[in-house]
Amino acid sequence: MIKEKGQALLNYINNYVSLTEIEAEILLSKVTYRKYLKGQFIVQQGDVCKYECFVLSGCTKTFYIDEEGQEHIVMFSIEDWWTSDIGSFITQTPADFNVQCLENTELIMFSYDIIEDLYEAIPKLERFFRQIIEKAFVASQKRIVRSFSLSAKDRFIYFRNQYPKIEQRIPQYMIASYLGITKEFLSKIKSELIFEQ
Amino acid sequence: MIKEKGQALLNYINNYVSLTEIEAEILLSKVTYRKYLKGQFIVQQGDVCKYECFVLSGCTKTFYIDEEGQEHIVMFSIEDWWTSDIGSFITQTPADFNVQCLENTELIMFSYDIIEDLYEAIPKLERFFRQIIEKAFVASQKRIVRSFSLSAKDRFIYFRNQYPKIEQRIPQYMIASYLGITKEFLSKIKSELIFEQ
Repeated sequence: MIKEKGQALLNYINNYVSLTEIEAEILLSKVTYRKYLKGQFIVQQGDVCKYECFVLSGCTKTFYIDEEGQEHIVMFSIEDWWTSDIGSFITQTPADFNVQCLENTELIMFSYDIIEDLYEAIPKLERFFRQIIEKAFVASQKRIVRSFSLSAKDRFIYFRNQYPKIEQRIPQYMIASYLGITKEFLSKIKSELIFEQ
Repeated sequence: MIKEKGQALLNYINNYVSLTEIEAEILLSKVTYRKYLKGQFIVQQGDVCKYECFVLSGCTKTFYIDEEGQEHIVMFSIEDWWTSDIGSFITQTPADFNVQCLENTELIMFSYDIIEDLYEAIPKLERFFRQIIEKAFVASQKRIVRSFSLSAKDRFIYFRNQYPKIEQRIPQYMIASYLGITKEFLSKIKSELIFEQ
């Protein structure tokens, strides 16, 4: 199973570093494949996150529930993205975020218990994870800049380009939550964009 | 000069990975020491950022100027912190942020031109930079959570704990900008905290 499912992960990693056949085998022997159902949680706020997950198929949302019970969506993850609460994973302390599946979702999971063994067996994975975490950090910084510099309409246009495949796959109120606007305002923006086309 | 100044950097790195004496020598032969004056810019929005910088002494602010000319401060860096526009550095595209010195500031600078040579000569630096970028990413995620979950007053208390040394070193309006509140509101919060003590 993992051999068959793991090819997408190997292809992804090979964009960053070249694994030998033996290294690829070691890697696939350490990670696990799992399928979650729509609605299930991969991480729950307050639990310790035990996995970093590569998404093979499906879609997840990462969100925070504040003390008033309000949901704040900080990220969606689709095919070839990663999903986790990385702060909780690194420090093995309770998670700030929930990660929930918006569709049936297939993952390859890197457990906290094996990650150090993996780095030791395949040192070039340090480089790989350095590079993808750099990208994630830059994306997070750019999102801060967009919140300062772009109108809600331009943030929505950016969202469309960044996640071209998911706009039809998830409820509109979640897109509104991610953009920090109301559902009604999102609807108004979409009407304007249709009119402008 | 670099030998004398480099010890703080070596001590810092040795918290993450153990460098041999030869590796430490190679490292110090590749990086550069520089002193900036108060008010000078290390990175300017629109320029390509050529350095990742370790702060030996002094203080910098990282900020974004929006189209209305409004300044948004996203980070301060003090002794033993890093400063750069990492998105610009990694991709060698124009910087989103300015990094300006709030005091005379001493840095050890990792140039883009030497960083790949350094990784090749000292592979364990991949691990080092992976770990510090993970921390930076987590800090950035936690800041998002605080913006959802904490009142301005609690954000200020958090700021005081996070940057215990700099509250007396920088103008109050900059702290207010970092917290996303007005100078007057910050002043009100500080009065309340004195009253509560």
